[in-house]
Amino acid sequence: MSLKTSLNKRASQEKETGLGTNSTSNGGRFFNRDGSPNIEKHGIPFLERLNLYHAFLSLSSWKFLLIISLSFVGMNLFFAGIYLIIGIDHLNGMVASSNAEKFGEAFFFSAQTFTTVGYGRINPIGFAASFVAALEALTGLLSFALITGLLYGRFARPKAYINYSKNGLFVPFRDGVAFMIRMVPYTRNFLVNVEARLTMSMQIVENGVRKNQFFSLNLDISRANTLISNWTLVHIINEESPFWNLKKEDIENGKTEILVFVQGFDESFSNTVISRTSYTYEEFVYGAKFLPMYHPNEDNSGTILHLDWLDHYEKAALPIEF
Amino acid sequence: MSLKTSLNKRASQEKETGLGTNSTSNGGRFFNRDGSPNIEKHGIPFLERLNLYHAFLSLSSWKFLLIISLSFVGMNLFFAGIYLIIGIDHLNGMVASSNAEKFGEAFFFSAQTFTTVGYGRINPIGFAASFVAALEALTGLLSFALITGLLYGRFARPKAYINYSKNGLFVPFRDGVAFMIRMVPYTRNFLVNVEARLTMSMQIVENGVRKNQFFSLNLDISRANTLISNWTLVHIINEESPFWNLKKEDIENGKTEILVFVQGFDESFSNTVISRTSYTYEEFVYGAKFLPMYHPNEDNSGTILHLDWLDHYEKAALPIEF
Amino acid sequence: MSLKTSLNKRASQEKETGLGTNSTSNGGRFFNRDGSPNIEKHGIPFLERLNLYHAFLSLSSWKFLLIISLSFVGMNLFFAGIYLIIGIDHLNGMVASSNAEKFGEAFFFSAQTFTTVGYGRINPIGFAASFVAALEALTGLLSFALITGLLYGRFARPKAYINYSKNGLFVPFRDGVAFMIRMVPYTRNFLVNVEARLTMSMQIVENGVRKNQFFSLNLDISRANTLISNWTLVHIINEESPFWNLKKEDIENGKTEILVFVQGFDESFSNTVISRTSYTYEEFVYGAKFLPMYHPNEDNSGTILHLDWLDHYEKAALPIEF
Amino acid sequence: MSLKTSLNKRASQEKETGLGTNSTSNGGRFFNRDGSPNIEKHGIPFLERLNLYHAFLSLSSWKFLLIISLSFVGMNLFFAGIYLIIGIDHLNGMVASSNAEKFGEAFFFSAQTFTTVGYGRINPIGFAASFVAALEALTGLLSFALITGLLYGRFARPKAYINYSKNGLFVPFRDGVAFMIRMVPYTRNFLVNVEARLTMSMQIVENGVRKNQFFSLNLDISRANTLISNWTLVHIINEESPFWNLKKEDIENGKTEILVFVQGFDESFSNTVISRTSYTYEEFVYGAKFLPMYHPNEDNSGTILHLDWLDHYEKAALPIEF
Repeated sequence: MSLKTSLNKRASQEKETGLGTNSTSNGGRFFNRDGSPNIEKHGIPFLERLNLYHAFLSLSSWKFLLIISLSFVGMNLFFAGIYLIIGIDHLNGMVASSNAEKFGEAFFFSAQTFTTVGYGRINPIGFAASFVAALEALTGLLSFALITGLLYGRFARPKAYINYSKNGLFVPFRDGVAFMIRMVPYTRNFLVNVEARLTMSMQIVENGVRKNQFFSLNLDISRANTLISNWTLVHIINEESPFWNLKKEDIENGKTEILVFVQGFDESFSNTVISRTSYTYEEFVYGAKFLPMYHPNEDNSGTILHLDWLDHYEKAALPIEF
Repeated sequence: MSLKTSLNKRASQEKETGLGTNSTSNGGRFFNRDGSPNIEKHGIPFLERLNLYHAFLSLSSWKFLLIISLSFVGMNLFFAGIYLIIGIDHLNGMVASSNAEKFGEAFFFSAQTFTTVGYGRINPIGFAASFVAALEALTGLLSFALITGLLYGRFARPKAYINYSKNGLFVPFRDGVAFMIRMVPYTRNFLVNVEARLTMSMQIVENGVRKNQFFSLNLDISRANTLISNWTLVHIINEESPFWNLKKEDIENGKTEILVFVQGFDESFSNTVISRTSYTYEEFVYGAKFLPMYHPNEDNSGTILHLDWLDHYEKAALPIEF
Repeated sequence: MSLKTSLNKRASQEKETGLGTNSTSNGGRFFNRDGSPNIEKHGIPFLERLNLYHAFLSLSSWKFLLIISLSFVGMNLFFAGIYLIIGIDHLNGMVASSNAEKFGEAFFFSAQTFTTVGYGRINPIGFAASFVAALEALTGLLSFALITGLLYGRFARPKAYINYSKNGLFVPFRDGVAFMIRMVPYTRNFLVNVEARLTMSMQIVENGVRKNQFFSLNLDISRANTLISNWTLVHIINEESPFWNLKKEDIENGKTEILVFVQGFDESFSNTVISRTSYTYEEFVYGAKFLPMYHPNEDNSGTILHLDWLDHYEKAALPIEF
Repeated sequence: MSLKTSLNKRASQEKETGLGTNSTSNGGRFFNRDGSPNIEKHGIPFLERLNLYHAFLSLSSWKFLLIISLSFVGMNLFFAGIYLIIGIDHLNGMVASSNAEKFGEAFFFSAQTFTTVGYGRINPIGFAASFVAALEALTGLLSFALITGLLYGRFARPKAYINYSKNGLFVPFRDGVAFMIRMVPYTRNFLVNVEARLTMSMQIVENGVRKNQFFSLNLDISRANTLISNWTLVHIINEESPFWNLKKEDIENGKTEILVFVQGFDESFSNTVISRTSYTYEEFVYGAKFLPMYHPNEDNSGTILHLDWLDHYEKAALPIEF
């Protein structure tokens, strides 16, 4: 717990993280593995806070289709009920005899109206039924207008298709040690003008008070003109590094978390995209190195990249003990 | 009114506000609380000036739906009228007997055409009625194409979901005084690479003429890598500050207004968003400090942020009198 | 024609205009008043060059509607023709007797299919007619899908709503002369982080060869945090200015053109927008100054801006003769 | 093969290419002529890797229409099959007698439902058929919602409409030699604030190991305020150039590749666009110069640009032998 003493005074503190330094006010890691902040918001009505549009954009395709289908059924049940209340005889052309069949026909008349198919065998007679049918057709069209936008939004929303290695490695590197993580773009999209930034957060004890402290981790190369293949971020643990002189125990006591931030311009979206992840001390591996992910194809005319080799590493002895 | 004399000569004037310095030419505050400029534009036809698209984007959901519904009714009244003028006998299949009923059937035939439901029990016979029906169906489809775009535009329009504290506080801070305001992002959206800027506007008397003068207020920290929780902007009132040596009376006489500008990159929109507000001297509180808004959850694995505590502050004595 | 001698050697030449310096290779002004380049492109098939999408975005609303309406009529004439070729008896339910009426019914059946209204009084019987009807309905839906996108594109396309004064003025300013133009945003949209740039192009004679030469014109203030009201760009004609020592005759002989470039971030579009215009020597006024465009409202709580006063100026004697 | 010795030590190496330096790990050129990376990705399921949306955006118009048409036919075959399974007598109003005709009517009923035309001569009776019809109408509407988004995405996707010359030329220039390529925007779209960057990749032998090495090629002018006409990128081969002292044989042995990167802001898209291409040593021409592409129009009031003259060059002797 004597962490403060062993902490490298030459390491550059990061003041602009936007994260709180009072470690008694916040709990757990700052960011989850998927890059979302580990924070819960209270005190404003749920719907206002939710941002329905972005919630729909984040749903999986199956959930999205399920919600649409259930809403479709729900809508038709609702309108079928209204047609029954108005009176089934205001729906002209029904052939049903039993009550169940009548409800069924009202339900499918509703579906034909909502989707604007309108076969017309069944059709509304009288003001009330005609009015509800007109309202339903309008509702249907607005719903599909909405869905059109949501579908487009789901597809067109720019995002970074980047996978990160499961672990952060302490790797023997140029007579010393470096901390490395690896990333790879996993679709045909590729990024240009990419920038990466690592920030370390630690809890330290200062005058008997536990505080969060933030450090920027310098990268050997922090920019890439293009990101078409795997990229390994290398933080050399030298005298400027906050990891300098730290032991595994310190790193764990400090509940160390490495925040990863990657920004680039995606050519397919023609838009800046941002990717983020975080590694906590439990995801560190001491003494290992990443194995290559790509090799030439058979006739040496192109390169083959193995996306599933992203996490491949082998043990490698470190020159310094952690 | 001897404001000019007491004004701090070391404060850095801001020349690039884009706001006029002639205080006799403009009236009231520069920006409203919601960030919109306090200006009225004349001299160009209303419609050309209005920018219908952005007007529709800014409407509340209820007003938007109401306008659509009323337009739908209006359209159908209009087309029903035309069908009546053409002659009700050109609508085949009507069962109405009274005039009111006939208008009703024409109205609902119109609705069925406009929404392209087209049940077909009632259908047009002859060139005129068929032509109007074809035109109406085209109009309907174009209308819903338009609405699709408007709905998408309403949802997809990037904007900053940020709330600001109601008041700007003069807070005891490091043996001196600081001017602080607080903000919080209130949805799941969060911002990265955030920059904040405060500009102060005052009316001063120079050679007997009242003029607007603008000063940038330096911020203790003006950038944040991420904005996921509350952020307090801190302007320290030191010898470089235009507030230096000012008294409450000067601040009020000068009709002081603090313009707040925040810019960041929203990860959900993948777009730069801008937020703006303004505090006038009537919204200042002399001697107070903000209370914390967040704390760890029960098992200390995450943080809970109370959005409704944004305005919570308590009185705190200032070391300098204002 | 001794222009070269009198040209200010201290003026800073602009090498990165992207415009050609060989004045015998290009004709007329570089940019038109609306900011479009004064260039014609040959040698690639028209359609490939045209970029249909952007052509449709630039059409006036009336032309856009007209093209849609005419295409709609054209489509229906085309499909009606096909139905006639297939045989009018494959359209079930027609009541027409004369040939003209039959074509009319085929035409309106086509319209009902294209818009997917499908009343169904007339409906296709047999493979050929049914097939064409299915194809037409598909075509119709695709057409309206396309129109939906075009309509949205027309509205949502970010552009700068800025008007420029008709003339560039030579204005008496601080004991000397300045060249000024004025602009104003004419809708509710407003810009932030605005930058303006003036570039002067002149034809000069060098070793008996006429060449285009470009100079940047320094602006007194070239940035504005916000552009909510009118903004006057001021180029002071001092010893660094290419206008220094030039006479009206030189300016005209050199076919001087001032290229104006304005860039800013529009808050409503949440997008960078660009505006451009150009003034040729024929649009210069020697000895004048702009009149104010705004004043406080009656109760002094807001400002009124007169967009139609943008071009108002009055004669003003210059301290230097041009 | 003694390439390493003759390589210019004063040339500035480029470390931030994001491309691998191990020439035994990758094969062939880095980028294809169209700017796409010459890399194949394995190890993640095809569909996840594919990014369907961007795949659809990249299809040619004809393929896109073909896929839609075939899907439409496939859908109707599928649903027609289901209606037959349910029983043809649940489709009310059919006039078909033979089995083939019945399938045909079921097929076209399906098409009328999928497109929501719904003439209604044929209409579903009973729960099963009605249910499938409702489902089909829903499917149809969702499909066209999807297509609407794809069509819009295809049009609105920002991209740079730039063509590049087929060859990179070694040109006599200012008593020395320069490497030049030429580009031209070929639609009405034009770019502002354009930046260009050339990177050279070579395979060199170091300690008996072949490695990729990257150099930035300085450009005489690397920025253009506007790109409305052709632009020639000029890399002067001086003492800082990696081409300095190289012979044609070295260039070929090194499998030299010039990566071209152009970035600008397109005014029509109001978006940053990126263009990229690459020239390998086989596309170099030693001793040539580009011929002009534009000239004034007849009345000298505008300029005519010949897009098809982009590749026009003539032989020109070099002062240095390659």
